[in-house]
Amino acid sequence: MKNLLIKLAEEECVSIDQLKDRITRGTVAIPLNKKRLNIEKPCAIGEGLSVKVNANIGASPDKSSAGDELKKLEIAVEHGADTVMDLTIGKNWKKILAGVLEKSPIPVGTVPAYGAVCLGGDLEALGSDDFVDIVRQQAEMGVDFMTVHSGVCKEVVKVLEDADRLGGMVSRGGKIIYRWMKRTGKENPFYERFDELLDIAFEHNVTLSLGDGLRPGALADASDDPQYAELKVLGELAARCRDRGVQVIIEGPGHVPLHLIEENVKMAKELCGGAPFYVLGPLTIDIGAGYDHIAGAIGGALAAWKGADFLCYLTPAEHLYLPEESDVAVGVITSKIAAHSADIARNPELFRKRDDKMSRARADLDWDLMQKYALDPNIIKRAREKYPVGDDRACSMCGEYCALLD
Amino acid sequence: MKNLLIKLAEEECVSIDQLKDRITRGTVAIPLNKKRLNIEKPCAIGEGLSVKVNANIGASPDKSSAGDELKKLEIAVEHGADTVMDLTIGKNWKKILAGVLEKSPIPVGTVPAYGAVCLGGDLEALGSDDFVDIVRQQAEMGVDFMTVHSGVCKEVVKVLEDADRLGGMVSRGGKIIYRWMKRTGKENPFYERFDELLDIAFEHNVTLSLGDGLRPGALADASDDPQYAELKVLGELAARCRDRGVQVIIEGPGHVPLHLIEENVKMAKELCGGAPFYVLGPLTIDIGAGYDHIAGAIGGALAAWKGADFLCYLTPAEHLYLPEESDVAVGVITSKIAAHSADIARNPELFRKRDDKMSRARADLDWDLMQKYALDPNIIKRAREKYPVGDDRACSMCGEYCALLD
Repeated sequence: MKNLLIKLAEEECVSIDQLKDRITRGTVAIPLNKKRLNIEKPCAIGEGLSVKVNANIGASPDKSSAGDELKKLEIAVEHGADTVMDLTIGKNWKKILAGVLEKSPIPVGTVPAYGAVCLGGDLEALGSDDFVDIVRQQAEMGVDFMTVHSGVCKEVVKVLEDADRLGGMVSRGGKIIYRWMKRTGKENPFYERFDELLDIAFEHNVTLSLGDGLRPGALADASDDPQYAELKVLGELAARCRDRGVQVIIEGPGHVPLHLIEENVKMAKELCGGAPFYVLGPLTIDIGAGYDHIAGAIGGALAAWKGADFLCYLTPAEHLYLPEESDVAVGVITSKIAAHSADIARNPELFRKRDDKMSRARADLDWDLMQKYALDPNIIKRAREKYPVGDDRACSMCGEYCALLD
Repeated sequence: MKNLLIKLAEEECVSIDQLKDRITRGTVAIPLNKKRLNIEKPCAIGEGLSVKVNANIGASPDKSSAGDELKKLEIAVEHGADTVMDLTIGKNWKKILAGVLEKSPIPVGTVPAYGAVCLGGDLEALGSDDFVDIVRQQAEMGVDFMTVHSGVCKEVVKVLEDADRLGGMVSRGGKIIYRWMKRTGKENPFYERFDELLDIAFEHNVTLSLGDGLRPGALADASDDPQYAELKVLGELAARCRDRGVQVIIEGPGHVPLHLIEENVKMAKELCGGAPFYVLGPLTIDIGAGYDHIAGAIGGALAAWKGADFLCYLTPAEHLYLPEESDVAVGVITSKIAAHSADIARNPELFRKRDDKMSRARADLDWDLMQKYALDPNIIKRAREKYPVGDDRACSMCGEYCALLD
């Protein structure tokens, strides 16, 4: 554990004391199951650290296989994802998750509600125990962080049902819990039995990522009563995590227009004691299907600049289909652009170094060095092969009129 | 002209008086050559109006043809570009430009410095007259707006040479002027003979777009002395445009980190009397080659939210090669995402309507309506063909666990 802190503090250019202090205050989390202390690329997420990027992989009920998902894992890692979440829903979920945990050099997250519905049969036949058991099972398997939709409790559901939402409830995990609650009439097990989740998380050092089942899925719903009612509950639960010595992350939206993003980040930080904030996007428009990774990068860059710590990637497949391998690559790179944009805005001295090297290489028309410093070296390599640069090293854009030639 | 104002005011949901007032004060420009008063899709750019998107097309010295560029024009228009600039450099520039002007339903811009170097021979053999003549020629051909790098004057060049820039000078047009000045020892003709440009622009109702030859091409150079020295000159020239009754637009960066974008926009507006501000990006990182349209969309969205009026698109080809047709499509859509993000942040009531319809369609899993309201209907159509949605209309992402099913 000491070596881990030394390694991470060095990577982040902070002192070990700073890092320890933030972990103690709960403003930094290191998602790392006790079973996986020796993974190759652990990471710390939160206050004053570089913005991290998560890639979602995982099969759908009827689509994909363990091999496909391992390939996506490889691509995500290769392109620089800091963590990966296996969101598989399907009979083979356990096999896929075990494979991902075995191969992944980076922290692995899950959504236990998905595991619960994979038990099969009618949703209402599941008992409260089934949900808690899945958390335990996944903790024992070695999962580093878990999204639990603990905020979708009866009190919050009432606020949702009283509201006139355009986009309704768009969280898959949150909706599973909601359906179960409506069909059984019972309270959300992840809320009612939160102390048991804390015990499990503490025992295995699982970081709890408090899911936002009521995140806005449409601009019209951003910052509405249901969203903030749930966030308030997440804040209370986050305090209980800290009291119990369990690491916690807060999940955030969703679809939020540019002018409401800063408010959303500040509110999450304030209500949740400065816990690391993990956003999905936010998407700044609703009409970008096919390009929602871009709408999400716009919102994600602004959110991270204003304090969000962790970006869940979006891919070109968002809202359309289960991401393919190429989508995973584009999604990771796009989120890294957003994260790096925010890093530079937060701390230019520290984070602009690679950009300065790239700019120097560009000014020198040194394509090998440009390839070295680019976020995606492969795309530069492919472009150079397809569109060779001229003898004067200018590209086909300007040729001899390249501004960078003397 | 009266009908034009009625049409544009209606489109922008402002009153004719508001529009007229802003045109008089020079905070709105309608780039439209007298010869092209009847084009199908004119547009107004500036204060309180929707953010516009320009697509650059045009052949390189050794690459592309008139037919290729007309195809790119068609694609740019089809994807929603508001204006197009023909940046051709090559012997056939006049033929290509004439074709673009004949076919383009949207305003067409040029960079006359490119036309000047196409006259052939050594750069230093060109006379000051040659530069002014090209402006006249293009005005007579019907060009609606022209980027003139009038700010690259001796005084500003001195500031550049005294500065220790990492990225140097990255403007192709600006560098042509700079090279000519260095080789001939003369003052920039677009600065020295600015009154003649005003006469030509006035006669043909050409909008002058004052180019930023010294825009930062690296984050390290953002907001530096050369950039602001040139901007100050552009502000003086903009005042001369207004005095002469010539419409004017100010061009801006470039590469600018997130935390300096608002300052850049405010400074441009302040120094230039609120003239419409036209930005290229700005790119918020330097290492995104292959994805620079995304880095540019992040910066462009923030810039436009804070007051920029006009976004020049960037494509995946930026910094790598002359854009192909597919790059043009992606570039336009990406910039439109940035522009629309800013529109919504500036005026949610007015600009969120289509998003709300999209969100309603999404909540209803109505794919035909989603296709109708999406920025790029084709990508939704293709995705649905490749990954058919299930009987319950959920997509392959979540299948039966789609949060939007009851």
